Amino acid sequence: MKHVLNLHSLPDSVWDVLIGEALKHAENRAYRSNQHPGKHMGLVFFNDSLRTRVSMELAVAALGATPVTVTPGSGTWGFAWEKGRPMLGGEAEHIQEAVGVLSRYVDALGVRLFASGTDRDQDREDALLQQFAAASAVPVLNLESASRHPCQALADAAVLTRHFDGHAKRKKFVLSWTNHPKALPMAVPNSTLLMAARLGMDVTVARPDGFELESDVMEKAAELASSSGGRVQESNDLQAAVLGAQVIYAKSWGAVRRYEHPEAEAKMRQSHRDWRITESHMHAGDNAQFMHCLPVRRGVVVDDAVLDGSQTLHLDQAEFRLHGQKALLDWMWEGKG
Amino acid sequence: MKHVLNLHSLPDSVWDVLIGEALKHAENRAYRSNQHPGKHMGLVFFNDSLRTRVSMELAVAALGATPVTVTPGSGTWGFAWEKGRPMLGGEAEHIQEAVGVLSRYVDALGVRLFASGTDRDQDREDALLQQFAAASAVPVLNLESASRHPCQALADAAVLTRHFDGHAKRKKFVLSWTNHPKALPMAVPNSTLLMAARLGMDVTVARPDGFELESDVMEKAAELASSSGGRVQESNDLQAAVLGAQVIYAKSWGAVRRYEHPEAEAKMRQSHRDWRITESHMHAGDNAQFMHCLPVRRGVVVDDAVLDGSQTLHLDQAEFRLHGQKALLDWMWEGKG
Amino acid sequence: MKHVLNLHSLPDSVWDVLIGEALKHAENRAYRSNQHPGKHMGLVFFNDSLRTRVSMELAVAALGATPVTVTPGSGTWGFAWEKGRPMLGGEAEHIQEAVGVLSRYVDALGVRLFASGTDRDQDREDALLQQFAAASAVPVLNLESASRHPCQALADAAVLTRHFDGHAKRKKFVLSWTNHPKALPMAVPNSTLLMAARLGMDVTVARPDGFELESDVMEKAAELASSSGGRVQESNDLQAAVLGAQVIYAKSWGAVRRYEHPEAEAKMRQSHRDWRITESHMHAGDNAQFMHCLPVRRGVVVDDAVLDGSQTLHLDQAEFRLHGQKALLDWMWEGKG
Repeated sequence: MKHVLNLHSLPDSVWDVLIGEALKHAENRAYRSNQHPGKHMGLVFFNDSLRTRVSMELAVAALGATPVTVTPGSGTWGFAWEKGRPMLGGEAEHIQEAVGVLSRYVDALGVRLFASGTDRDQDREDALLQQFAAASAVPVLNLESASRHPCQALADAAVLTRHFDGHAKRKKFVLSWTNHPKALPMAVPNSTLLMAARLGMDVTVARPDGFELESDVMEKAAELASSSGGRVQESNDLQAAVLGAQVIYAKSWGAVRRYEHPEAEAKMRQSHRDWRITESHMHAGDNAQFMHCLPVRRGVVVDDAVLDGSQTLHLDQAEFRLHGQKALLDWMWEGKG
Repeated sequence: MKHVLNLHSLPDSVWDVLIGEALKHAENRAYRSNQHPGKHMGLVFFNDSLRTRVSMELAVAALGATPVTVTPGSGTWGFAWEKGRPMLGGEAEHIQEAVGVLSRYVDALGVRLFASGTDRDQDREDALLQQFAAASAVPVLNLESASRHPCQALADAAVLTRHFDGHAKRKKFVLSWTNHPKALPMAVPNSTLLMAARLGMDVTVARPDGFELESDVMEKAAELASSSGGRVQESNDLQAAVLGAQVIYAKSWGAVRRYEHPEAEAKMRQSHRDWRITESHMHAGDNAQFMHCLPVRRGVVVDDAVLDGSQTLHLDQAEFRLHGQKALLDWMWEGKG
Repeated sequence: MKHVLNLHSLPDSVWDVLIGEALKHAENRAYRSNQHPGKHMGLVFFNDSLRTRVSMELAVAALGATPVTVTPGSGTWGFAWEKGRPMLGGEAEHIQEAVGVLSRYVDALGVRLFASGTDRDQDREDALLQQFAAASAVPVLNLESASRHPCQALADAAVLTRHFDGHAKRKKFVLSWTNHPKALPMAVPNSTLLMAARLGMDVTVARPDGFELESDVMEKAAELASSSGGRVQESNDLQAAVLGAQVIYAKSWGAVRRYEHPEAEAKMRQSHRDWRITESHMHAGDNAQFMHCLPVRRGVVVDDAVLDGSQTLHLDQAEFRLHGQKALLDWMWEGKG
């Protein structure tokens, strides 16, 4: 079944088609509209969303299909996930039935299911997403899980492809950790890194010591870079990293220490409040563009002047969610590519 | 006006058409699609829902109409129901205006309005549903009220008709009370019993003493059975009841004692925790199928092995909600049958 | 850009077209249906809604477009509004990005954003609505702001035009303050007054001393009346005001004192509980019709007998929300008129 739980396991041929199709959707809003009349898509949001829900509902509708959104715990009961234990708690339905039932109504399921922040193995392996997909009789599209955000990565890849006019290879891309009041999940940094590596960019992951990404992700990125002719390196010096950068992609995430020592992690983050992208970082680049997946905390992650300036792609990234998701749905339902 | 507040008051000719149409929708997803362009349907959920909301929104859309869902108290204020009393409380709008207004926008209203659990007469007579329908200028479809769940009953009737290839008559159907942490309402057991009796099945209501259904429902079931050539009996012995059963339909409900003595009722339920459907009950049947309206508590109402086995119709029942509701809407809007 | 933040700044030619179109939509439900296929509309509700959300979703769908509803704080995070301050609080996204992003997905944005009740200048100037509109790259439709409710005013104008068969001019219109347990915002009374003045009606604002509307609104109303041949006066005597009235439009609002002395204001209101429209007020009129924008508190704002009688337009007003909004969207998207 054509689940899309991450992008890195899609073959290059599909990856290329998806980017190409996203760009066509961006150029022409009517492109492939109403190609899937009578199809239904279920969108299950275990976590809050703005861009994702709005762009998914509109992508589905633009293709002529019907979206239906489910928010567990709001208008419907919560779901139990554990297996083999009598359900005597607050959850009235098991995810096995919930997904089984939805599968009978729809032609694809999208699901947003963030990291627990408390179970590192479960988060790293996207165990809940895997369980959800296993219960589904229809293709599942990951709308941000514990460790991956393929829709964001596809949107970003298409934005970069357009920005560099198809020549993103070897362009200097800095994925910079930033300050944030909370220990955020790693889905976006993971997927961003893998995306940029796959595009063959010259990637630097800039982060304070202790904020390394998971090693399996770094290894996968190195592997993709080696195939694509790109490069992946790390730096704990933001000032040095941004020199000559063509893209500065800001994103905060929690240190892996949070799983065992959340208070120690909070303290670590406190001491790096200067990791905030400013105009001076931007000027140190080479006509650098700012990127962020949003939502973004102004004055914490990045200065207002950067977001309000002209050297930023953040709204394009949001817009391309719509275009990329149309391409993904089309591929899931029709096998283009 | 063609309100559908229960199924038992529909004439046999309509009942037959609805089941027949539901089966056609199940066979061919495009059947009668887009037959009602420009129609609008309001769906009002005073209580949580998964299957009902999703399948109603999709049924309406598949017919070419537009659904709009309202959840009183979430995104809109709560509604007052009492008449003739100055509205000085938390509710900003009276149900009279709320329904009156919605009636002006839509061509039918669906409403979910569970039992109070505290006012037995009101629940038994579906008094709030009647009030809602009386305020409406358009047909009202009951999406589960205090004492009836016609959409579930129609889905189940069509599933049984398909399963027995049109020969459900005299097949042995056990409606079994089960263990549950809460005193649930009686809408589903009531409607299930009336449905099976109308199909002419050989029905046993298995329940511990004290968990009898309301006497007016038992009488109505006997009447339907007498017309259809079926039979209705009761048993307080689950083991004996399931012998030779072709269908075991599990469902928990609260004892009527809950209205006056909720704590005594909870204690009564505690002493019947062994009323949980297991593989051994299933094996005692005659190639028995398990049924449940969902949501279901695994390990409490039924064992995982039954739900995960091959002798169960629970996902078909959920699926047929969609098919049956298309048939109902079509009939409400077009008078087929 | 064709924002519709209020009605009074639309030229007379547009105003006339909108009323005329609303009446056509009321006569023929299929009028101009499916004129805007492929268009998307975002509906952002910072406050509760029944009529507005339902009628907007259906208006958009009837025109062939796709609505998508966002409820900040429910399913999505809350938004920050302050500028130039590091976002360290509970809000994860700034309204600047939220609106900027939505603008990329849709062809118009509707927004409901009630009065703060605490910042009089902000409320009077609709400062938050202005900020929202400034952040938007697409036309913004006001779905009730701190100080205006143009969709209600358009609906009411069309209802009055129909009721008086096009001859509303010089008909006696009483906008009457009423009792209410809370200090409500002024958007509806402001817009109602301006609407009736523009129709050239003979308007009396009846309210207890201390419940005057804001002076800028009274001045604007006088100006509109002077152009339209109408009249605007005030009265603190409800009994006298309703004599000979052809329309009694009930609505409660808070005294401006609430901004500085909320407790004193509550006490003021307490002493005017007899400002409740009764049948005797209606009989004092000249075949008077009751009007109210809803939701309405029965027995507090108006007696049940008036709402349940035949001399009331309140459900027509609600219905015309749908018709008027179709006209507004059509005009925003196509420039009719």
